[in-house]
Amino acid sequence: MELLIIKDRWIDYDGSAIQSHWAYRNFGILGNSLVVFRGKCDVKVREMIDIEDLRQNKEIRGDDMVHYIIEVFDLVNALFASTLQKLFVAKLSEVLANYGVKTVRKGDDIYVDGKKLSISIATVSPVSIKIHIGINVEASGIPEGVDAIGLKELGIMGVDNFMEKTGRALVEEFNKVKKDSLKVRWAQ
Amino acid sequence: MELLIIKDRWIDYDGSAIQSHWAYRNFGILGNSLVVFRGKCDVKVREMIDIEDLRQNKEIRGDDMVHYIIEVFDLVNALFASTLQKLFVAKLSEVLANYGVKTVRKGDDIYVDGKKLSISIATVSPVSIKIHIGINVEASGIPEGVDAIGLKELGIMGVDNFMEKTGRALVEEFNKVKKDSLKVRWAQ
Amino acid sequence: MELLIIKDRWIDYDGSAIQSHWAYRNFGILGNSLVVFRGKCDVKVREMIDIEDLRQNKEIRGDDMVHYIIEVFDLVNALFASTLQKLFVAKLSEVLANYGVKTVRKGDDIYVDGKKLSISIATVSPVSIKIHIGINVEASGIPEGVDAIGLKELGIMGVDNFMEKTGRALVEEFNKVKKDSLKVRWAQ
Amino acid sequence: MELLIIKDRWIDYDGSAIQSHWAYRNFGILGNSLVVFRGKCDVKVREMIDIEDLRQNKEIRGDDMVHYIIEVFDLVNALFASTLQKLFVAKLSEVLANYGVKTVRKGDDIYVDGKKLSISIATVSPVSIKIHIGINVEASGIPEGVDAIGLKELGIMGVDNFMEKTGRALVEEFNKVKKDSLKVRWAQ
Amino acid sequence: MELLIIKDRWIDYDGSAIQSHWAYRNFGILGNSLVVFRGKCDVKVREMIDIEDLRQNKEIRGDDMVHYIIEVFDLVNALFASTLQKLFVAKLSEVLANYGVKTVRKGDDIYVDGKKLSISIATVSPVSIKIHIGINVEASGIPEGVDAIGLKELGIMGVDNFMEKTGRALVEEFNKVKKDSLKVRWAQ
Amino acid sequence: MELLIIKDRWIDYDGSAIQSHWAYRNFGILGNSLVVFRGKCDVKVREMIDIEDLRQNKEIRGDDMVHYIIEVFDLVNALFASTLQKLFVAKLSEVLANYGVKTVRKGDDIYVDGKKLSISIATVSPVSIKIHIGINVEASGIPEGVDAIGLKELGIMGVDNFMEKTGRALVEEFNKVKKDSLKVRWAQ
Repeated sequence: MELLIIKDRWIDYDGSAIQSHWAYRNFGILGNSLVVFRGKCDVKVREMIDIEDLRQNKEIRGDDMVHYIIEVFDLVNALFASTLQKLFVAKLSEVLANYGVKTVRKGDDIYVDGKKLSISIATVSPVSIKIHIGINVEASGIPEGVDAIGLKELGIMGVDNFMEKTGRALVEEFNKVKKDSLKVRWAQ
Repeated sequence: MELLIIKDRWIDYDGSAIQSHWAYRNFGILGNSLVVFRGKCDVKVREMIDIEDLRQNKEIRGDDMVHYIIEVFDLVNALFASTLQKLFVAKLSEVLANYGVKTVRKGDDIYVDGKKLSISIATVSPVSIKIHIGINVEASGIPEGVDAIGLKELGIMGVDNFMEKTGRALVEEFNKVKKDSLKVRWAQ
Repeated sequence: MELLIIKDRWIDYDGSAIQSHWAYRNFGILGNSLVVFRGKCDVKVREMIDIEDLRQNKEIRGDDMVHYIIEVFDLVNALFASTLQKLFVAKLSEVLANYGVKTVRKGDDIYVDGKKLSISIATVSPVSIKIHIGINVEASGIPEGVDAIGLKELGIMGVDNFMEKTGRALVEEFNKVKKDSLKVRWAQ
Repeated sequence: MELLIIKDRWIDYDGSAIQSHWAYRNFGILGNSLVVFRGKCDVKVREMIDIEDLRQNKEIRGDDMVHYIIEVFDLVNALFASTLQKLFVAKLSEVLANYGVKTVRKGDDIYVDGKKLSISIATVSPVSIKIHIGINVEASGIPEGVDAIGLKELGIMGVDNFMEKTGRALVEEFNKVKKDSLKVRWAQ
Repeated sequence: MELLIIKDRWIDYDGSAIQSHWAYRNFGILGNSLVVFRGKCDVKVREMIDIEDLRQNKEIRGDDMVHYIIEVFDLVNALFASTLQKLFVAKLSEVLANYGVKTVRKGDDIYVDGKKLSISIATVSPVSIKIHIGINVEASGIPEGVDAIGLKELGIMGVDNFMEKTGRALVEEFNKVKKDSLKVRWAQ
Repeated sequence: MELLIIKDRWIDYDGSAIQSHWAYRNFGILGNSLVVFRGKCDVKVREMIDIEDLRQNKEIRGDDMVHYIIEVFDLVNALFASTLQKLFVAKLSEVLANYGVKTVRKGDDIYVDGKKLSISIATVSPVSIKIHIGINVEASGIPEGVDAIGLKELGIMGVDNFMEKTGRALVEEFNKVKKDSLKVRWAQ
């Protein structure tokens, strides 16, 4: 899995990065990839993937978030997408623990003291699985009714460093997952 | 995913439980399942799944462990097996955190203070994926050279209760993974 | 497979219900589902799935039909979709036999005395298989040149009851198919 | 799907015909196939596929049966195997209806007047799906406790003719299923 | 694999033939197919499949080409599509060798004396894999900067005959590939 | 795809190398691999993969051959295995052309002047596809009735060099196939 961390500029997330080959089209990265970037979040209705959100007319917004866009081509399957998503969110919680932040993970959501730190979605395209994870840098611009928290409130000021650490951790996790899948004989 | 927790007797783990339909053959559980039991661990060479272990003539042993045998029929794929295994191991770490135990997860291994608490393997059969996770209750009977630790050393005395809590947590995690895979539209 | 039978209102079928997640978007039903409803049928050209019909500029119409919309997420494959479709149509014929109606099934069509009682299509979306079956309540509004028959001409007056019986029968059939797929060991 | 009907000799069914490539190894038939033959049935325990039968120590026996061995290579999946099996059993019931025999199908079993006419199993090999269906010619040699019936008791005396008719009907059904899977565009 | 060679008229290739079921929609050919035709080539940007070309704003043009459109429904997978594409291009090189033309194949491109003779793309639709191969009849109308060559420059004047020979060769190759996949037992 | 060329010793080929994970078990190579080695060939009946050979009691023998063992984990499918096998054999023919040897490829066999230069088989294991290709160094020890030829008769004396060149060419081909599968958008 190739890692690209974009630090020199902000990229706003409108949901279109969930489409297949986004990393290749925009950055020339071929194959499995994780792109980490920072920017506003305002997902257009026509890009919304979670039908539950669509049915409830939910807004997905935030003024300043770290975004992770993952694409894996090995296996096109929604259950696999959902499993890898949860593993990646769990890994992010583990990195946060190293920062001294105690989190509670519920499925694909991370909470700190009952406040929502992250958003996430996982789905399939006809050629790949795609995952988006967003972590609030600041809890501003969040939809009303959501009690949110951000990295800054947690005392994590070095956002570039956080992007670097988490990016590397997720890629390392995926590479371990892949490697282990190759070293086992099949069972009867 | 159906959950069976066996508390009234010990079952020794010799590796044969990694075969497909073990839960159905032995307990009549049809479909996705998690069976939690307690017993010795002594994996026969001919049941060993990890070829790395086979190449190094490793022993897989322990006098008293809690065992988790998972079988999922939705998708027969080694990468999916490896992903779900890591997620389940991460979940066990999260439950341990609720017990106040600080763990470090490296792939499918859980460590406490640099000591190994668990073993695990994930693979495919021709009809399912299979995962075994074992957690030491006591660090005795462990192969030489492995610096191990067990639940008792960590102050977790209620093993039945631990089996219950972790069993429920893993099933809940899987059900959330599955549910989420069904509520998302596909991406272009 | 979850069953929803809509009796309190008519829903017209224009072909759009063949799209993925239709049951979830409209009724909040997550996962495998069968929705049974009653209404007119007038499939728009842009929703037509059968390319043979498209090539021949066929119309798909009827003034009053019972509709069955099936979605299965377990396996995304057109041959599986076509097989399950035929099984479901065969099952409907078996239920009709219980009503004393002697039918002839040809693939996915049901005939009574050489007259067409039903229409059907089966296909894949990128995340699921989808099947539509329609059974004429009255043979009116049918495209010219089609010699059709309806439930009323067959003496089946209790349409609500018919919807109930057939809906339950199809779900039961699917559940048996699924269950049986889980209780067999693989063959060499 | 290629059809082979063996009329010049009996072949006893001991369960080994459920293995992959049986038709190719024994008759040189490459690819999807249906082999119809007549013979005793006595399935060895080590060839038993149904784990429910294994758990209950069931016997699978009969002195004179018509056997159908199906292998399909298009799609290796247990749910597909189970679906095609039920469709084929439904088709056999439809052919029996043409003989004037009123049957009740329950999943993969055919009953006449509450008596069991058939046995069946469907599973996967690592390269194909395999289905066995057996229809009693005479209800003799059946395990105790099973209330069975055979073609002769139903007045169907021309067994060769029955093998011919049913063999052709099943192949025709499969070919229709396959053809229909190719003529539909995918749904959004 | 069904073969259709269109000799009585030209068909211009604008890229839309890469969509699924093109052969069925236009010529009524059901299932795996190879359609060979002759015509101009001018691929519209919105039909471009190669994202590398899109990123570089490449033009795909030629005044006179032989086109091969392949669709295979057996297996929906991009790696398989890419493998079959290379095999087909290799086969075309072998046929050219029989004409006495010495070629160099680089992946999916054929060169003669360092000049480009062909273009090709392979991808998946949600129901099939699709391949396009184009061979220059004359090296005219080619985008600037591409050093191209055509069949005429190579002394191959009977284009109809070339279409016939290559069409048959590709179908024969595929049929051999398919046949061989059915005659091998699986390995442990 | 990792390449291992064994030049310091001979390895005899008895057919067992066709089993899954052979490269990992014996050489520690994880994932997709090509192992090239030189040795006798004498395939035991119980390791024979080609059922046609088994049915005809064919022998597969040779005193001195270059062997290629390929394993790919990306996609477990017999049609893909057969396609990649033909592409690899075509590639070997192309390398031979660079040596000035004119070959004729028929499916997975290479002929020179009507004499057989190679043998090959492709199949699936439950976790991978496996391909064996063998090229005669000398046409001795070949089963009676087979008119064979070897590299030496063709004037190719540097067998180590040939192993190197062909090994690199096959790996390069596979890497190109894989890369191309990742750079194309899907078609409607």
